[in-house]
Amino acid sequence: MAVRLEVMNFLNEMAERFPAAISFASGRPAEGFFDMRAWIESMHSYEEHLAEQRGTSRELVERSLAQYGATAGIIRNLISRQLRVDEGIDVASDRILVTVGCQEALDICVRTLCRDEDDVLLARSPTYIGITGAAYLGRAGIVSFREAEGLGLVAALEKAIESAHAQGKRPRALYLIPDFDNPTGEVIDLHVRRAILALCALHDILVLEDNPYGMFRYEGTPVPTMRSLDDDRRVIYVGTFSKTLCPALRVGYAVVPQRAVGRCDLMEAMVQAKSFVSVNTSQFAQAVVGGVLMSQRYSLRDIVSKPLAHYRRNRDEMLDALDRHFADLRSQVHWNRPEGGFFLVVELPFDFGDEHVKRCAEAYGVLVMPLRYFALDSNDGRRVRLAFSNTSPEKIRDGISRFSRFVHDHLDRKGASG
Amino acid sequence: MAVRLEVMNFLNEMAERFPAAISFASGRPAEGFFDMRAWIESMHSYEEHLAEQRGTSRELVERSLAQYGATAGIIRNLISRQLRVDEGIDVASDRILVTVGCQEALDICVRTLCRDEDDVLLARSPTYIGITGAAYLGRAGIVSFREAEGLGLVAALEKAIESAHAQGKRPRALYLIPDFDNPTGEVIDLHVRRAILALCALHDILVLEDNPYGMFRYEGTPVPTMRSLDDDRRVIYVGTFSKTLCPALRVGYAVVPQRAVGRCDLMEAMVQAKSFVSVNTSQFAQAVVGGVLMSQRYSLRDIVSKPLAHYRRNRDEMLDALDRHFADLRSQVHWNRPEGGFFLVVELPFDFGDEHVKRCAEAYGVLVMPLRYFALDSNDGRRVRLAFSNTSPEKIRDGISRFSRFVHDHLDRKGASG
Repeated sequence: MAVRLEVMNFLNEMAERFPAAISFASGRPAEGFFDMRAWIESMHSYEEHLAEQRGTSRELVERSLAQYGATAGIIRNLISRQLRVDEGIDVASDRILVTVGCQEALDICVRTLCRDEDDVLLARSPTYIGITGAAYLGRAGIVSFREAEGLGLVAALEKAIESAHAQGKRPRALYLIPDFDNPTGEVIDLHVRRAILALCALHDILVLEDNPYGMFRYEGTPVPTMRSLDDDRRVIYVGTFSKTLCPALRVGYAVVPQRAVGRCDLMEAMVQAKSFVSVNTSQFAQAVVGGVLMSQRYSLRDIVSKPLAHYRRNRDEMLDALDRHFADLRSQVHWNRPEGGFFLVVELPFDFGDEHVKRCAEAYGVLVMPLRYFALDSNDGRRVRLAFSNTSPEKIRDGISRFSRFVHDHLDRKGASG
Repeated sequence: MAVRLEVMNFLNEMAERFPAAISFASGRPAEGFFDMRAWIESMHSYEEHLAEQRGTSRELVERSLAQYGATAGIIRNLISRQLRVDEGIDVASDRILVTVGCQEALDICVRTLCRDEDDVLLARSPTYIGITGAAYLGRAGIVSFREAEGLGLVAALEKAIESAHAQGKRPRALYLIPDFDNPTGEVIDLHVRRAILALCALHDILVLEDNPYGMFRYEGTPVPTMRSLDDDRRVIYVGTFSKTLCPALRVGYAVVPQRAVGRCDLMEAMVQAKSFVSVNTSQFAQAVVGGVLMSQRYSLRDIVSKPLAHYRRNRDEMLDALDRHFADLRSQVHWNRPEGGFFLVVELPFDFGDEHVKRCAEAYGVLVMPLRYFALDSNDGRRVRLAFSNTSPEKIRDGISRFSRFVHDHLDRKGASG
């Protein structure tokens, strides 16, 4: 895990040392659409709503919002309505825990589910660094399995479960980003989702469904969330407003099924953990989110429409640029066409590590993210993640051209030296 | 620990069932002084400052603030200046970690310092529930010792260290609120602070100094913080803006000494933990705090002056009311005179538990907090904590009169039945 810290330090160092480099390394949302001032304004409509509900003045409501508050959050009913409208998820307010972004939700899940030394998580490799870190910090092991096409994924998962059992481990939850995975950008098909749920039911394993990118689909038909397919109270669904609104709010949530953990209900255990991690999520930030949800009639589709168009255009631009610049290497260089989300993955005909990141940034002025940084095993040496979210079509054209020059030069040199 | 959850549920239930009861149970800051609107306004002065510093527009600064940001925080330099002015603490910005309130700082400390099964914390009993919870959640044991007068405290601590060693445990840090302790309201004397630091140096134990109430002294001479006495890089100092400004900002911090933990620097390890708990503290909330600090020339003394006068008056009112209503029981009922903070402690001539909390709330209309809820051992059955922060002189007069009637009735009944 020290490795992972070094990796992030290394990437930050690269970004600092080569500030002119075009970065496809970070999956941040596009800043141009943040409308903080308007969002703060809409906090007032939430305050008015509360004042009416409580039969008191807005001034008193404002003061009470500045105070400590309910550990599980105060906008659970509004999030519940948004989930119904935007995601087709039907959930009672009291099964929602408001958290400091989705990272805190992941941390709380790990700490609540993996209390014993033998409790482990299951995760695909490569996977999101945040869950790897939460597991490390929570002293929970991860048993990983390779990504695979279709039902191959379920077979790989089954093997991982068997392997965990063989090691005397107890798999407690499977972590997945089924829609537009970070880092791969891939979507898990409906029949595969169902098969995963069935397999997890068989082994009494929970599913931790992380869905930060679900609202950002650029083509194709939406696949139902695993939460909405769950008739077994098995899925913990984790969401965030960091991508739909902005990261600085630090508001996310977990949708928690009714289920016993130890002597108490899972929700109760998670609320207790939350109280010891951060007492409660800023009511101020919650009021901003609440105000936006109310003013948008519980759907973020409208707010998301502009960044969504921007992300789609960026993705298309990146696919076009890859097509153009790697036309002569189609048999050696491959990439996927993600239907949504912030990332695509390019597979190169050679290993790509720290020294390549550095040469790319230094000599070619483009920063990319090796997939090995996300790997839980020793694979993925040849792949890189390209984020197209917080950049522009111009930079994408330029950046992919630079990246292509690096790849061509590298292959030429290898050819010359080989 | 399930007990502690039940306790909080029980108290919340009491507050809900008897909403007319006067509450001395919760140590919340006084809401009347929250000035959220003005504080949000002052965020703009922070933005202007950043814009000037970066040579860019305020609009671009505002957008970048709404984004993810540096894990350790962006207002470390401003907090460093405030610590120098208000607390006499001299610390470089890069030794400050901005956190989601002080609770997250405690959680991160526990998780960073206590990684092995045998690592334990040391704490006085009774102690703040937040550290008990953080230890529970971090699967770190606590070895406790009784509060004691003067150097008796150091002797008790020494015994606890010996006892921990005898159990094969490794005490990693001592948790203390040296100024106006929660729950007792007590202050640790200067010579005792020095002796504690010397003892901890002898056994290579860190000190976790939690100081939420330091700015609220009503009489007597301030005692230097343990951090400012620390010439051995041994004290982690934890602060918060929850009491000086308001809890809804959820901004706190840890001042971290230069010290190795495992293979890396303690600060580095804590920053990594922070990234896996909540990525970074809301830049939006940090900008509000930053703006207030700048507009106040790096001192919160002025903002704190009004609530401080209010708290002092409430404390005096409570002491007067206790004097009046327990005049006939001076040999049986005792209380302390805290020089600051939010709490005082009353010792009764009988055990005070859940059933008494309930009877007090139901039949006498006053809610108090048994000290046993804070105890790490089986003592403290006879003491209660009275919070005088978020209430009024009128309610204090009325509430202490009610509490006194309960105590008198209880003693009469005991006398009659005995």
